[in-house]
Amino acid sequence: MTIIDQLLRPRRVAIIGASVDQSKLTGRPLAYLRKYGFTGEIYPVNPRYDAIDSIRCYPDIHTLPQPPDVAIVLLGGDKVVDTVRQLADLGTAAAIILASGFGEGGVEGKARQDALRSAAGNMRILGPNTIGLVNVTERIVLSASNALVTDELVAGSIALVSQSGGILGSLLSRADAAGIGFSKLIATGNECDLEVSDFIDYLVDDPATRLIALYLEGLRNPKAFRATVFRARAAGKPIVVFKVGRSEAGARSVVSHTGALAGSDAAYDALFRQFGVLRAERFSDLLDIPIALTTAPPLTGRRIAIVTSTGGAASLLADAMGRIGLEAPPPDEETATKLKSLAIDGATLDRNPIDVTLAGVRSDIFATILDILIASPSYDAIAVVLGSSALRDPEIVSDPLRACAAKSRKPIIGFTSPHAPQLVRRLNQTGVPTYADPESCAVALSALLQTTKRGLPHCDIPAVSENCSDVSVFRTLLRPGTLNEAESKRLFAHFNIPTTSEVEAATPAEAETAAKSFFGPVVVKALSRHITHKSEAGGVAVNVRPEDVSRVCAQMTDRFVAITGWKPEGFLIQELVTDGIEMILGCRYDPQLGPLILLGMGGVGAELYRDTTLRLAPVDANEARAMIDELKVAALLKGFRGRPPADIESLVAAVVAFSTMAAVIGHDLQEAEVNPLFVRPAGQGVIAADGVAIVNASTL
Amino acid sequence: MTIIDQLLRPRRVAIIGASVDQSKLTGRPLAYLRKYGFTGEIYPVNPRYDAIDSIRCYPDIHTLPQPPDVAIVLLGGDKVVDTVRQLADLGTAAAIILASGFGEGGVEGKARQDALRSAAGNMRILGPNTIGLVNVTERIVLSASNALVTDELVAGSIALVSQSGGILGSLLSRADAAGIGFSKLIATGNECDLEVSDFIDYLVDDPATRLIALYLEGLRNPKAFRATVFRARAAGKPIVVFKVGRSEAGARSVVSHTGALAGSDAAYDALFRQFGVLRAERFSDLLDIPIALTTAPPLTGRRIAIVTSTGGAASLLADAMGRIGLEAPPPDEETATKLKSLAIDGATLDRNPIDVTLAGVRSDIFATILDILIASPSYDAIAVVLGSSALRDPEIVSDPLRACAAKSRKPIIGFTSPHAPQLVRRLNQTGVPTYADPESCAVALSALLQTTKRGLPHCDIPAVSENCSDVSVFRTLLRPGTLNEAESKRLFAHFNIPTTSEVEAATPAEAETAAKSFFGPVVVKALSRHITHKSEAGGVAVNVRPEDVSRVCAQMTDRFVAITGWKPEGFLIQELVTDGIEMILGCRYDPQLGPLILLGMGGVGAELYRDTTLRLAPVDANEARAMIDELKVAALLKGFRGRPPADIESLVAAVVAFSTMAAVIGHDLQEAEVNPLFVRPAGQGVIAADGVAIVNASTL
Repeated sequence: MTIIDQLLRPRRVAIIGASVDQSKLTGRPLAYLRKYGFTGEIYPVNPRYDAIDSIRCYPDIHTLPQPPDVAIVLLGGDKVVDTVRQLADLGTAAAIILASGFGEGGVEGKARQDALRSAAGNMRILGPNTIGLVNVTERIVLSASNALVTDELVAGSIALVSQSGGILGSLLSRADAAGIGFSKLIATGNECDLEVSDFIDYLVDDPATRLIALYLEGLRNPKAFRATVFRARAAGKPIVVFKVGRSEAGARSVVSHTGALAGSDAAYDALFRQFGVLRAERFSDLLDIPIALTTAPPLTGRRIAIVTSTGGAASLLADAMGRIGLEAPPPDEETATKLKSLAIDGATLDRNPIDVTLAGVRSDIFATILDILIASPSYDAIAVVLGSSALRDPEIVSDPLRACAAKSRKPIIGFTSPHAPQLVRRLNQTGVPTYADPESCAVALSALLQTTKRGLPHCDIPAVSENCSDVSVFRTLLRPGTLNEAESKRLFAHFNIPTTSEVEAATPAEAETAAKSFFGPVVVKALSRHITHKSEAGGVAVNVRPEDVSRVCAQMTDRFVAITGWKPEGFLIQELVTDGIEMILGCRYDPQLGPLILLGMGGVGAELYRDTTLRLAPVDANEARAMIDELKVAALLKGFRGRPPADIESLVAAVVAFSTMAAVIGHDLQEAEVNPLFVRPAGQGVIAADGVAIVNASTL
Repeated sequence: MTIIDQLLRPRRVAIIGASVDQSKLTGRPLAYLRKYGFTGEIYPVNPRYDAIDSIRCYPDIHTLPQPPDVAIVLLGGDKVVDTVRQLADLGTAAAIILASGFGEGGVEGKARQDALRSAAGNMRILGPNTIGLVNVTERIVLSASNALVTDELVAGSIALVSQSGGILGSLLSRADAAGIGFSKLIATGNECDLEVSDFIDYLVDDPATRLIALYLEGLRNPKAFRATVFRARAAGKPIVVFKVGRSEAGARSVVSHTGALAGSDAAYDALFRQFGVLRAERFSDLLDIPIALTTAPPLTGRRIAIVTSTGGAASLLADAMGRIGLEAPPPDEETATKLKSLAIDGATLDRNPIDVTLAGVRSDIFATILDILIASPSYDAIAVVLGSSALRDPEIVSDPLRACAAKSRKPIIGFTSPHAPQLVRRLNQTGVPTYADPESCAVALSALLQTTKRGLPHCDIPAVSENCSDVSVFRTLLRPGTLNEAESKRLFAHFNIPTTSEVEAATPAEAETAAKSFFGPVVVKALSRHITHKSEAGGVAVNVRPEDVSRVCAQMTDRFVAITGWKPEGFLIQELVTDGIEMILGCRYDPQLGPLILLGMGGVGAELYRDTTLRLAPVDANEARAMIDELKVAALLKGFRGRPPADIESLVAAVVAFSTMAAVIGHDLQEAEVNPLFVRPAGQGVIAADGVAIVNASTL
């Protein structure tokens, strides 16, 4: 029995600081356990009572008859550490700590959280600053959430793991109103011990759970997250995440709230994309997407039939769907003929939206139309508009909808045009995902399509074996601090990134001699470990005739010194590369998520248009291709307006090589960048024309 | 008394085809007039009854005692035209036609709509295919909308004009649930006569209306729309529009629905932006934005204080706000000190979000905090999170919110974290804009800021006086069809757009002679009225020495003929321009909205990144500057990473000149484009290096 099993299905629950007053937070856990029929033993602990709700109450932890599986600690900050120590000594398996004022409360709080962790010994902790958890499947509530007072506990197949107890309550309340049930509800709070990944790992194997919804503020163990998300994908359980921190204001509020490390949101986004985690853009998507993914069959294409009795609402739906790449094509001839045979006065049946008008709002008509559309080769899914007529007689439309959805292998969803929360609830409860916003319908269908289209993850977590590169060799290249261009490119070349032919020279005279070994004009650069923007410092001269190199070097030195105050360490004489599309290839070590790699259009494309994409390193060739496809510059690489296609396969190889370098070196490589990386016409390869690497000084 | 006045405040209303059965559409108008206490005369017309609801019923139109101000025609398609003729003959001021099957019903329907229009003579028509209108201010309902059966008619200051009756009903129902009232509700349907602009024009002067919300499918009279929107802005009445047709699927569904011309959505977007119409992105925004704009005071900056009792929900809010450019900065020292003096246990009061925790959920604490924040120089608005505690005792938070909002000169808005529709309704009703989605809070605040920041429209509708250019001269330049580069640039030059120095030559020999008058190498181009993409056809040679020109021209001719099958009409010898930022400047005559101009980054910037912006022509210098500022390439023009700033003022002048050309020529200029337009360093001007114009053949 795993610890999460014990937490979700305890036989003995102690409630430390339980109160008789059910209106108080301290009164709720016991009341909830009783209300939902907990069949195990309950040990309330409070010296002020002999019994609570006819259950024997214990004066302290030492008097408990047996070590509990789970202890819910309702005491305030001061007493928590001592209580935890006592519980641990008794052999309690896990404690749920509600108190706040720990990791989220500045330096002092963090120290208290460390003390808590150490007092727990082998006992596991959920929290602190958690509202607890609920095993909805088996109706076991170990929570003090306010939301459970008013709302029903409806079992469903969505598991929710939230780093905020308030958000858990908010989602429970919203889901209840929409007729959606959960399998498990878990608030992880400050995660001083158990954290989101522990629960995801459990939920992947939980037969009652078909989808995992996450509210995230930041990951404390990204490695575990990656591993567990990978397992979830392999098990076919989608993960939908709403993560805050996409803006500075949001990130700051999170830090202030639970002390979670905010990290770079762009890096999180890369992580989610790479590992197939669906990111909810709006808060409401965190319920809207799961509703569809847990009830509708797979969506295998983009063609949506819209059935309506009211034209305007159908236009809203068609427009919202079209905006995110779904289509609402007219029916094929056979389907159109079948639809037209219904011959409803004033209806437009052979087009899409299929408008039955008020005259067609009849159960038999809807059922027939749905049957025709389910059988039609023209459509992959059906969206039905529920107009104001559906408010008066909900069963007219909802009955055929439910019946057809139950037998359809295509998704069927509903959209309520007027305010109709009861209808939304009713339809969701009967297995027809139904939404009040046209945009939510589109988002839900799009999520269905994404989930269907992906196969198994194409990005494994490759074990970067140390022998993929000779450690003893590249270690010598990792001089702490900023490497100059020649040093950086030697490092890149070691990892098989093609670089320009170049020769280092210590003096202008040496440089000229070197230049004469090139065919034709060369590029002259000042080498510097101090100045990375060489061009701005006058440290680059392009198209220099070999016989001019000595003079150019001398002038360059003067200007470089004048502008930067640094003397160049030497000169780099380089072949002149002019053809090819300029890309940028970079990596950065994210303190939270590890090495990231960036690919983008070079020059203005990166700077003005942010045409870049991120991944966690390393990536394989498939993932590198996916990165390229995400860029707008992909059109240019593939041969744009009659231009020759570029050497995409060599670019893929360079991305893989660069990401391998980032992964192998790890934390020691603070950041590195090839800019520009010229991607030449197909068959002619890529070439790193300039670059820089920064090695962490601390580690060597 | 205007016709709209008569429609909204009639004294005598005839109901043609009235029924005694109130459950039927034909029974509703009379029932509604009675229910809401209409004090004028009602003339039901139906040969089957002597009276309906104790009101005398007339057998036909001829027997009516007096011409009605308004006749609601409830008859079906066949009888409508004849009825309209009879009503017109009687001297009826206006008829509201509910029947469908007109303009939206294909060729046959369009013919019927024409017949309807002609039968009406001087009588005005609302519809056909309309659900009618409601003067909520004075409780006069001339509608058969289903939505009025169940929902309350709450008076407010938002006027809604909708081209769809179903959408009007949907919004009425949603607004009612959210506690929002309207001043006027008007469904314009097919607009065979009266259309949206007629109503906007009236509403600008309606004292009960503070804001106009529009549901648009397409404009039938864009000129009138521009004029009336301009009036609304001058009157300080915001217009918020939700327009469908942003995707192909949406546009097609609209055409099928009401036969509205879809037009180019990008052109509509330009129109809205140019004339300060706020565009609702999501359907729900069409209510959410008006709620804030009609109740909250102006927002004068981006700094939002967030007050909460639950951390997670505050993060949602901060994050959503940050994503659209709002800020949640910490308080200044004095404000922080005041907040901290409240000394609530466990609360974080000196930061933002200001988290009072559950311990601080007290009316007096909220009132004090709101007072401190209203007085604080750190904030421009306040957003308050309503957590689950607010559900149990709504008045604890809502009372101080209402009281403070009433006296505050800063906007105060609410966000309900749990599902709390009653609380949303209650707060909206008491003047505190309150939302259930964090993103809606952000959108509402952003709309407030946009409305506050803009002054009077900076884009007037300039009367393009014909004397701004000599008509007789440029008319001769407008040869029907595609103009070749030389012809196009003569046209552009006539409108004061600087072009490259160039000489036309009929033969290679002439070309060489011409080239020798240039200093240094030239550009040689093949002139063709048939081929616009000269480069792909081998029709451009750059950097040609004058002595090579004859040979280059001969070779060019051969290649050009081989590739295109067309012989060049001659050659263009052109100065070589290489410096400057490449822009694109174009215009296109939109059949719906008239001449549009486009400005964007040239080359890859336009093709890959769509870094372009549109306006209706003509634009003035301010609007041209606004266009430039919308582009990402603006950063480059302004001097990027130490590059010299470009000659933006000359670019502004060129945009104004080009737009004047588009406006003056109007429909005759189908499209034109300068590409590239080189924008040189400041003081050195702009220069059109290539271009094309297409003149409508039909008009000359």
